[in-house]
Amino acid sequence: MSIYEVRLERIQEWMTEQSVGVLLVTSPPNVYYLTGFDCHPHERFMALCVTASGERALFVPTLEKEEAEKTGFANIVTVSDTDDPMQKLRDVIGDGPYGTLAVEKLHMTVARYEQLQTVFGEDKAVAAEDLLLGMRLSKDQEEAAIMKKAAEIADRAVEAGINAIAIGKTEQELVAVVESTMIGLGASGTSFSTIVLAGEKSALPHGSPGSRTIQKGDFVLFDLGAVYEGYCSDITRTVIVGEATAQQREIYETVLAANLAGIAATKPGRPAKEVDRAARDVIEAAGYGEYFTHRVGHGLGIEVHEFPSMHGNNEQEMVPGMVFTIEPGVYVPEVGGVRIEDDVIVTADGVEILTSYPKDLQIIPV
Amino acid sequence: MSIYEVRLERIQEWMTEQSVGVLLVTSPPNVYYLTGFDCHPHERFMALCVTASGERALFVPTLEKEEAEKTGFANIVTVSDTDDPMQKLRDVIGDGPYGTLAVEKLHMTVARYEQLQTVFGEDKAVAAEDLLLGMRLSKDQEEAAIMKKAAEIADRAVEAGINAIAIGKTEQELVAVVESTMIGLGASGTSFSTIVLAGEKSALPHGSPGSRTIQKGDFVLFDLGAVYEGYCSDITRTVIVGEATAQQREIYETVLAANLAGIAATKPGRPAKEVDRAARDVIEAAGYGEYFTHRVGHGLGIEVHEFPSMHGNNEQEMVPGMVFTIEPGVYVPEVGGVRIEDDVIVTADGVEILTSYPKDLQIIPV
Repeated sequence: MSIYEVRLERIQEWMTEQSVGVLLVTSPPNVYYLTGFDCHPHERFMALCVTASGERALFVPTLEKEEAEKTGFANIVTVSDTDDPMQKLRDVIGDGPYGTLAVEKLHMTVARYEQLQTVFGEDKAVAAEDLLLGMRLSKDQEEAAIMKKAAEIADRAVEAGINAIAIGKTEQELVAVVESTMIGLGASGTSFSTIVLAGEKSALPHGSPGSRTIQKGDFVLFDLGAVYEGYCSDITRTVIVGEATAQQREIYETVLAANLAGIAATKPGRPAKEVDRAARDVIEAAGYGEYFTHRVGHGLGIEVHEFPSMHGNNEQEMVPGMVFTIEPGVYVPEVGGVRIEDDVIVTADGVEILTSYPKDLQIIPV
Repeated sequence: MSIYEVRLERIQEWMTEQSVGVLLVTSPPNVYYLTGFDCHPHERFMALCVTASGERALFVPTLEKEEAEKTGFANIVTVSDTDDPMQKLRDVIGDGPYGTLAVEKLHMTVARYEQLQTVFGEDKAVAAEDLLLGMRLSKDQEEAAIMKKAAEIADRAVEAGINAIAIGKTEQELVAVVESTMIGLGASGTSFSTIVLAGEKSALPHGSPGSRTIQKGDFVLFDLGAVYEGYCSDITRTVIVGEATAQQREIYETVLAANLAGIAATKPGRPAKEVDRAARDVIEAAGYGEYFTHRVGHGLGIEVHEFPSMHGNNEQEMVPGMVFTIEPGVYVPEVGGVRIEDDVIVTADGVEILTSYPKDLQIIPV
């Protein structure tokens, strides 16, 4: 039985348990997870439809037909730009009654939902996320192997970026080095737009790389990730150019200690919030608590942000196979910021770190 | 008055006309259009809130505070990862009654909508898209100038990509050339993941570049775009490597004629569908109708796909300032595909083409 068949069987069980009549999976990551079809249809209609009686159909935009057929999925229904998707849906599932509808409430738009209500009626749909995101929460061995490879590509791209640092180069030039390295190593794309920030700009956790040039004394922060066989990596490293002030060293060592504390707190059976707490305690004890303005990390997989959310209130228990980032940061306005981010997987007895580029403070000679 | 203030005044008028009590704008493109704040908050809560009484607040994730403040927006409210966004919202707008809620139904998720219903009640919200996307439909002179620059960057990236063609190079290597050219020319990112497809793969309208190497006789299709000052370009060019068969020439000349026919049909006051019809007529007359499997184009602006949708049923009248793509294609399985795409803006008396890389059939000497 293929991995997709196994996953679809699990879904079918859930539908029976929850008395769901029709499940429509419309988010590209979940469609990929359940069928292997990797497609971002923008505003076009794409859906995996599963009925309680075991009927399955994959609705795809007409222009994606060939790609969809490569998955080997048995029943592919094309929807052209001039078709009415609701009519196409009715053609497949008949006139009803359909029973309860389940959709991904975190993904489906209100507009699409209101369209579906013309077919399924006004009753509130069931949220399919608990099931689908729960299934994706623990990675199996094959997924873990792919993610390790995605992390390796990110490691090597960080290395290439750091090696390319030189006085006068722009942030954007370093972005180009990083991104072409990832593509050259077989990434199908980047997990997100690569971030390279220099000097005071490194204090912006999600700032945009621009024409700021590298200067002596700058922090240079690299945050990047590769998509490999549909799975994302995400790494951050920060270095200092030329020479470091005492404050820069202190910030760096604080963040590194927080990163290591977060990793040490990653254990199956413990609540996710303890990872955030462990990293935050280190930063607060060093007096930088007010400058650590975000959660310690996020789940990672087919999406670059998925569950579990590694924030300080998350009571969810860590279980083997969970993959997430641990990325404490300290951002001091005008001075600069440091973030150190690894991707980790929870194991039966602790944690394995997927990213491996060194973390000791690097002062780049210039 | 700033351009943002002008746009917000227009919104306030609409709210009065439609008896809307509270408008929540949550999609990054519309938030950017109305405030200049360029932020992709992933699953975090970001919203521009406007009330009938003229109160305005911009809710942003805590870690985006500094960037948000740069816009000069008067009332910025931060929401941390552990805050309840609905409580933050209540803190600002008080206890109600609020009147009718307006949201972007094409963007807002069902999950967020159900959260909002706990504040605003179960009555159906009004769709804010008619207003917001309508406002964005016609670009003003400043926007047009930015988009021309974005198109220029795309022109030069196509040129760099075509110049880099050589036997044995991979599609991905050409992607790296194209993308680093755009970044080097000042693009803040790409409009979408660059597509370079060679040989039979060019017949996949949205295929993914991989390790397929360039061979003599291949079509090589480049589809790419730059983001410049928040606006997207999108261009496609197809060339032939070494030597062309009679069928390849016929396909190319057919698509080129269709592209030109679409441009010629672009006129203010005429329905959008005529552009699709004009291009499709050419392709059907040449006997390739079944291989042109998508609409002729899409609106372009802050988003790479926005209104108007240039499909064969769109009765919407073209008006000056509309920007869209004209991108007919013919995709013959196993043989290959050609697509030729320009970005155009409707003018007072016709059309101006923003992309300018040459379109005559190019056979790349190898």
